[in-house]
Amino acid sequence: MAEYFPAPGRNHLFVPGPTNIPERVMQAMNRNNEDHRSPAFPVFSKALISDVKRLFKSTKGTCFIIPTTGSGGWESALTNTLSPGDKILTYRLGQFSHLWIGRMTRLNFEVEVVDLEWGSGVDLEQFRSKISADRSHSFKAVCIVHNETSTAVTNDIGGMRRILDSVGHPALLLVDAVSSIAGLDFRMDEWKVDVALTGSQKALSMPCGLGILCASPKALEAAKSAKSLRVFFDWGDYLSAYKSGTYWPYTPSIQLLYGLRAALDMIFEEGLDCVIARHHRFGEATRLAVKAWGLKLCTTNPMWYSDTVTSVLVPQHIDSGDVVKLAWKKYNLSLGVGLGDIAGKAFRIGHIGHLNELQLLGALAGVELVLNEVGVKVPLGSGVVAAGTYLSKSTPLIVSRL
Amino acid sequence: MAEYFPAPGRNHLFVPGPTNIPERVMQAMNRNNEDHRSPAFPVFSKALISDVKRLFKSTKGTCFIIPTTGSGGWESALTNTLSPGDKILTYRLGQFSHLWIGRMTRLNFEVEVVDLEWGSGVDLEQFRSKISADRSHSFKAVCIVHNETSTAVTNDIGGMRRILDSVGHPALLLVDAVSSIAGLDFRMDEWKVDVALTGSQKALSMPCGLGILCASPKALEAAKSAKSLRVFFDWGDYLSAYKSGTYWPYTPSIQLLYGLRAALDMIFEEGLDCVIARHHRFGEATRLAVKAWGLKLCTTNPMWYSDTVTSVLVPQHIDSGDVVKLAWKKYNLSLGVGLGDIAGKAFRIGHIGHLNELQLLGALAGVELVLNEVGVKVPLGSGVVAAGTYLSKSTPLIVSRL
Amino acid sequence: MAEYFPAPGRNHLFVPGPTNIPERVMQAMNRNNEDHRSPAFPVFSKALISDVKRLFKSTKGTCFIIPTTGSGGWESALTNTLSPGDKILTYRLGQFSHLWIGRMTRLNFEVEVVDLEWGSGVDLEQFRSKISADRSHSFKAVCIVHNETSTAVTNDIGGMRRILDSVGHPALLLVDAVSSIAGLDFRMDEWKVDVALTGSQKALSMPCGLGILCASPKALEAAKSAKSLRVFFDWGDYLSAYKSGTYWPYTPSIQLLYGLRAALDMIFEEGLDCVIARHHRFGEATRLAVKAWGLKLCTTNPMWYSDTVTSVLVPQHIDSGDVVKLAWKKYNLSLGVGLGDIAGKAFRIGHIGHLNELQLLGALAGVELVLNEVGVKVPLGSGVVAAGTYLSKSTPLIVSRL
Amino acid sequence: MAEYFPAPGRNHLFVPGPTNIPERVMQAMNRNNEDHRSPAFPVFSKALISDVKRLFKSTKGTCFIIPTTGSGGWESALTNTLSPGDKILTYRLGQFSHLWIGRMTRLNFEVEVVDLEWGSGVDLEQFRSKISADRSHSFKAVCIVHNETSTAVTNDIGGMRRILDSVGHPALLLVDAVSSIAGLDFRMDEWKVDVALTGSQKALSMPCGLGILCASPKALEAAKSAKSLRVFFDWGDYLSAYKSGTYWPYTPSIQLLYGLRAALDMIFEEGLDCVIARHHRFGEATRLAVKAWGLKLCTTNPMWYSDTVTSVLVPQHIDSGDVVKLAWKKYNLSLGVGLGDIAGKAFRIGHIGHLNELQLLGALAGVELVLNEVGVKVPLGSGVVAAGTYLSKSTPLIVSRL
Repeated sequence: MAEYFPAPGRNHLFVPGPTNIPERVMQAMNRNNEDHRSPAFPVFSKALISDVKRLFKSTKGTCFIIPTTGSGGWESALTNTLSPGDKILTYRLGQFSHLWIGRMTRLNFEVEVVDLEWGSGVDLEQFRSKISADRSHSFKAVCIVHNETSTAVTNDIGGMRRILDSVGHPALLLVDAVSSIAGLDFRMDEWKVDVALTGSQKALSMPCGLGILCASPKALEAAKSAKSLRVFFDWGDYLSAYKSGTYWPYTPSIQLLYGLRAALDMIFEEGLDCVIARHHRFGEATRLAVKAWGLKLCTTNPMWYSDTVTSVLVPQHIDSGDVVKLAWKKYNLSLGVGLGDIAGKAFRIGHIGHLNELQLLGALAGVELVLNEVGVKVPLGSGVVAAGTYLSKSTPLIVSRL
Repeated sequence: MAEYFPAPGRNHLFVPGPTNIPERVMQAMNRNNEDHRSPAFPVFSKALISDVKRLFKSTKGTCFIIPTTGSGGWESALTNTLSPGDKILTYRLGQFSHLWIGRMTRLNFEVEVVDLEWGSGVDLEQFRSKISADRSHSFKAVCIVHNETSTAVTNDIGGMRRILDSVGHPALLLVDAVSSIAGLDFRMDEWKVDVALTGSQKALSMPCGLGILCASPKALEAAKSAKSLRVFFDWGDYLSAYKSGTYWPYTPSIQLLYGLRAALDMIFEEGLDCVIARHHRFGEATRLAVKAWGLKLCTTNPMWYSDTVTSVLVPQHIDSGDVVKLAWKKYNLSLGVGLGDIAGKAFRIGHIGHLNELQLLGALAGVELVLNEVGVKVPLGSGVVAAGTYLSKSTPLIVSRL
Repeated sequence: MAEYFPAPGRNHLFVPGPTNIPERVMQAMNRNNEDHRSPAFPVFSKALISDVKRLFKSTKGTCFIIPTTGSGGWESALTNTLSPGDKILTYRLGQFSHLWIGRMTRLNFEVEVVDLEWGSGVDLEQFRSKISADRSHSFKAVCIVHNETSTAVTNDIGGMRRILDSVGHPALLLVDAVSSIAGLDFRMDEWKVDVALTGSQKALSMPCGLGILCASPKALEAAKSAKSLRVFFDWGDYLSAYKSGTYWPYTPSIQLLYGLRAALDMIFEEGLDCVIARHHRFGEATRLAVKAWGLKLCTTNPMWYSDTVTSVLVPQHIDSGDVVKLAWKKYNLSLGVGLGDIAGKAFRIGHIGHLNELQLLGALAGVELVLNEVGVKVPLGSGVVAAGTYLSKSTPLIVSRL
Repeated sequence: MAEYFPAPGRNHLFVPGPTNIPERVMQAMNRNNEDHRSPAFPVFSKALISDVKRLFKSTKGTCFIIPTTGSGGWESALTNTLSPGDKILTYRLGQFSHLWIGRMTRLNFEVEVVDLEWGSGVDLEQFRSKISADRSHSFKAVCIVHNETSTAVTNDIGGMRRILDSVGHPALLLVDAVSSIAGLDFRMDEWKVDVALTGSQKALSMPCGLGILCASPKALEAAKSAKSLRVFFDWGDYLSAYKSGTYWPYTPSIQLLYGLRAALDMIFEEGLDCVIARHHRFGEATRLAVKAWGLKLCTTNPMWYSDTVTSVLVPQHIDSGDVVKLAWKKYNLSLGVGLGDIAGKAFRIGHIGHLNELQLLGALAGVELVLNEVGVKVPLGSGVVAAGTYLSKSTPLIVSRL
């Protein structure tokens, strides 16, 4: 099949998802269908469903691998744990939290939204006030985006948990970890997160098509009395299938599950904490480049810096959409557009998933050129040098090649 | 990656879905992710969404390609067109209609179920009585499985439409066409079907992961006032995305969409009606084999014969599960188990999707051996001869090789 | 890429090579190029070159994996061990031995050809006379095709070795094992074969592109004084590369080598002797089918029956080419044509490589139909029943699925 | 299959072959074997063999696509056109010309070698003297490497042709164009080259495994009387197969040929001259980077600059092998080692095949880091800036995305 809009060389995929699929994952998915009702598939499935928990740093949780997207994952998290009219405390801090809030509203929850300046994350002291004030425990859930992909803001989930605990607030803690799991440090059990969810096309470096949730025992308990209507997204059907040993309530995405197996194997072989450290280096390197360019980050405070995506503000007279368009048209570089409130004002560099240093430096070199070409006169080379200097010092030798 | 339970040679995949993926579809999906927000993806998407309608023989319909399964498709069809408490007339005639009814009930519709003997389809005269009696038009929808995959029964949708029209009943006609679209003759526009749905892993011969719906203008109109809660499955989000030209309300399954492009291309090149005729030949051939074996079909009347699956009853002293197990364990042949009421009593031969004559004859030869090995003493060769004789006469030369 | 002459379903590839590639091998080859001069490639190569010997049942031999075909393998075997004018005793018993003889002649050896009736193999007593009569040891080499792919004749290499030994004849024993290695029992060390060779596209079930040789210590010794000109095919360059640890004298076929790794892994997991036994069953089954059809084998004596290919004679008034053509045009079945002296008189069924019982029965069912359609009135079903009955009794359960 | 020495992200393959395989070529090769004797394969083959000529800018030539490597291609070129003892004039200017000369010698030609300083190319005036002096036309062939991959020297083939013509010298002009065809401007017909050859793993961006030759009518004529022994490499067998319409004298590399089809399609869609211009830009950019680093090119004169590879000299106290090793061990960057006389003194950056600007800039950024890390204190960013500035100005928008 010929390509649409073909170009020489590889596409430089630096949107914050979908991400670059490693060859090994592609190989694993390059297979015919099979009968998911055969004795083979449950053996494979059991191990997979168990192993995927490790991504969440959870031993107590229960995972659901659903043939859907992150949006479907949101719906599954909410409807399985809450009842219509339940009060949710949540934060709007960018496009994806905004979209999630839209879903909460449409699902008939009573949503108390704290609007943050886009670029900011949750201020823990404000959160403490909010939570402390809720003496009646009217909030049934706190819903928070761990990593807001549009503004490159990472919230302090552990900090939020400590505050909830300190005031003895029983609200469920539901976390959109779409652009964080397997990229950022995420500690399901330690932080007592009740539901966390991600999608296959983010740090797992797979095609889109799997919504992956991890639910705490408390969340499973909540599911027993939650009255929200859910059918396709009902955990109960999964739990029955786990018990019966068929593992899937409807035809699963066979190829994606084999891809997930390969993705997990790769992550565990590299070491989950090494993967997270790699993402941290790439976040740091990218921010150093932006600083060297003299541009501003969308993220307003270092405590919220994201290690999976960087959102860069462009000067006022520039349309950030032009940066993205030219990058694609001239250099086959895919950058993230500014979304929602920051459309036209920011572009985004995703540094998430199966990537390495020189892929990133190539992309930064491209961003420098494009910026200049659209009229943002950043010093050519400055970003590459800043990022490269840092990476040169911080990058370990590849373990397998010592 | 090593296989689970490896075996020499190819797996003979004769379950009625998931089906055999052609090489060309696998090639099309063997690709990295890309930015679905680039200018390229909408161009590709627009043509795809338009072309997929042809599978339904529809020009008036609107298609939704949703990252979900057939089960999700059911939910989407129901919730977008109906309101809680709406009365549905439906038929339970096998495991999949049974499961769909379960979903209708859970979605809070008032479901009037006509229970048919498994193996039978809708009796049109009974349907006429039922519909005629509903003078108040209390049925807001008639929900019917076109092809019940568990019992191999194909219902006469055109006939049902004629009856609805003859009495002027305005009920929506919602059709589960999961194991029929691109395998059986299906005429969305001619039969004035309001919603029809399928999944990618059936006659389209793709991996699981896409729920594909086609909605009539009347269904779209109904969606405007339908009060069922739906968010992930809401057509409104798709229609907005169609209007805005982004085409997808959330990250689409990129690889599957390219696979769908290849699958459509192959079907249109062979000719949709030729594909349907091929399925008919394979249905006939398989039924002739069953007859030659002296076994009974689950399907009780020729008018309901299915051309995508054959459900075969085994003698009472035999567990049909043993047929399926031995086929897999000895001949790497995947047959469908009996489901629900006919568990243990029937096994199923899927002849759906990208298949040809000798694949089918190989499978029938295997079934003959397995039947004898588990104690059903069918005359060896009888089925292959019956099917082969028919195929020899009815199979045209391959058009491209004339 | 659209196909040339597309057809529904899978091609039934029953030529005696190229053979069906397993998914796992295709996955292993689905990879980008890499730097074969990196530290990684030699580690991989060393193990591969060592393991490939096991296919030949050799521990003493040295293997050469050459980017070429079986024809190139022939040239490499001859030129590395012999000098121009050296006398070769060889047998013409079909098209491939005929072609090999052509190469011997063109390479300026003195070739004493014993012409056998096509369909016959080496008569050991005649060989004994021939060898005994050569008191002066004028024959420097005996060149013999283990399995003549055109006539389906397998020669008794062990028997030939015993005769050479019994008369103390020092001739090198060079064996074309192209369609036998990994399909037929082949015992390099036990039979003191001096050079054996195969190609990747035969029982190894890979793409064409590798000529694989195994040379005995005596052959390596002979190479030191052999005066035939060879450059690309010179073993010396390989031996130097083995010593230096680079392993390859020129750019190797990276993807094919990874495919070979997977192919070896699969064969060793199934068990080489189990693979050979499987080929024997398929040979037997096919011959039983031919007998049931009332047709004659090209192979004239059971002691020469081949387990990787069956050559079937058609009645005189029939052109065997029509069988092959119709099989391809109507049933997407690829059979082998009659070659050389038996062009038009025979067609061939390859049962070699990664295959299983029902693939074979499907093909035999197809052959029955085609024979009748071209006018050879064989009893429909007879072959499938004969083969199936035998396979039903002789096929073990799949080990991994017990 | 797990990787040997796995690393995060993609390998940066910047050796001057094997090169990066585009997804479309990988898709085309991701296929089962087929019967190359079917009516389909000749149709495919005929077009392919005809189209491949366009890479050489030839209409008069005849191409041979041989299952071998570039080394095999050399042998084929020489043995088909020359007789043992024939005098060859050739130049040793690096490792690959050195290896070719080794083959000439081993093939029993009388080789007059002009040794050039490594880094230099053919001085046309010296060539004129040499040729003019050969009044007796003792040189039967001039053998020359178009692009010496080890030293990054491109010779002026057109200039050499003009000199041969000007003195009326009838020698055949045989050109190793392994690392030039589809990367550098090469004009088979205009320059009256008699044989040119390349390999699939170079600018064609495919796996290794095809040696591709183009022969002029004069070369074909020479082949009729050439007495060098050749069998596997004999053009005569190909010409017979072309005439008979089977196209291949032995089993062809089916998957590679489909890959070649895709590679040709991509090159012709981009436009061969655009591909060549792209290589020129990358050559220029890389040389500007080297200059900015203050390092010396191995190539001594701009008139010999190569656009497919750059060979960079390191300071005397540095082992260039350390640059290559560290690049691989830390940044998963594959650079070319110094070969032969310049082992340890130079490393090479291949910029050949399916590549784009940001891939190159990423690699250059990596080289800068590695150089500094091994003790070559080049100004960080200098190379990226120099190359980037040039590329920014010279790179056109991607045609399909205008």
